[in-house]
Amino acid sequence: MFSNEEKESIYKVIYNRRDIRSFLSTPISEDKIDRILSAAHHAPSVGFMQPWNFILISSDEVKEKLAWAADKERRSLAIHYEGEKETNFLSLKVEGLKEAPLTICVTCDPTRGGSHVLGRNSMPETDMLSTACAIQNMWLAACAEGLAMGWVSFYKKNDVRDILEIPPHIDPIALISIGYTDDYPEKPILETANWRKRESLKSLIFKDKWQETN
Amino acid sequence: MFSNEEKESIYKVIYNRRDIRSFLSTPISEDKIDRILSAAHHAPSVGFMQPWNFILISSDEVKEKLAWAADKERRSLAIHYEGEKETNFLSLKVEGLKEAPLTICVTCDPTRGGSHVLGRNSMPETDMLSTACAIQNMWLAACAEGLAMGWVSFYKKNDVRDILEIPPHIDPIALISIGYTDDYPEKPILETANWRKRESLKSLIFKDKWQETN
Repeated sequence: MFSNEEKESIYKVIYNRRDIRSFLSTPISEDKIDRILSAAHHAPSVGFMQPWNFILISSDEVKEKLAWAADKERRSLAIHYEGEKETNFLSLKVEGLKEAPLTICVTCDPTRGGSHVLGRNSMPETDMLSTACAIQNMWLAACAEGLAMGWVSFYKKNDVRDILEIPPHIDPIALISIGYTDDYPEKPILETANWRKRESLKSLIFKDKWQETN
Repeated sequence: MFSNEEKESIYKVIYNRRDIRSFLSTPISEDKIDRILSAAHHAPSVGFMQPWNFILISSDEVKEKLAWAADKERRSLAIHYEGEKETNFLSLKVEGLKEAPLTICVTCDPTRGGSHVLGRNSMPETDMLSTACAIQNMWLAACAEGLAMGWVSFYKKNDVRDILEIPPHIDPIALISIGYTDDYPEKPILETANWRKRESLKSLIFKDKWQETN
């Protein structure tokens, strides 16, 4: 059972967790990293398959290569966006990969647990969903540890496979930057940048069946 | 910043959250449900797209239909498993959908946010990953509220679409059972059932590149 104080702490971290794109170079102690990864490893997984691996990247050379891959994709994506604001915003996002003292590539191995993983047999994408749950645990733990985390999701997966020598059947789901920041925002940066507003929760809840709201 | 006590609460819920399959009929107060859904809604999402909806199902008739769909898939899957233990185990999992006072179908709308969602443009599956982060927040909040939650991931999506009148472009990612339980296990039920062991975390961590361990 959880006391009211405990509950409040849990909601506090859920509400305060933010996606961060600028980092200080201050190093992170190993015990913090261990606790964050252990939190990730205690995520739920379909058929208990635990499909995740964590590649910890602190080499500047490797971080430069990853930033190159993300920047290449950023420039390619920017062609689909119009207007200076959007392009500027996109350019902000890649710097974090170089600034943060630690980048973690979180991967998903769809073959772990054999050919007939319970649940995954029915929905193959549940291995990725499990990996996302691990990333969310990691994010909450990082926030609790006073660390900032950013999830980079634009790169060609084969570029990241090449850079990190990841086998072809392994899915590099996310590049995660972790570090300290002196710029921890109250609201999501995309909300502050008027990219998009938070939806009203009420409009997202239906009873007993789908209800079209538009 | 988080105090040591706050940090401990956060790790406590991360370590104690379990996938539950048997529920009491005790109803859940509305304010608890609101807090759990609000936690889900404060998950990160790619391009802040917030692709989720929550269909709250308390109608016994609808729950029966969902249990039918899951049971049909269970029987179909069981053909791929051999041995009585596995089949018995599979049979356990469907009952929760009927027992729990509340089932939540969590969906993902890949069209929300328009045709060029930041990040999703590069990896289309990031909408699903965002939805999984919302489910993980929901799970931690439910655990903090003293509730048990189970994630059912075997059904044909079109069966669930038919039952809940979900449009064809919307992805019914998960059926979630929520309720109280008198059987909250210390370890994952698949671990206790010797289905699979927890991997050693150390074996899952690599430095600067993929390192084959086999």
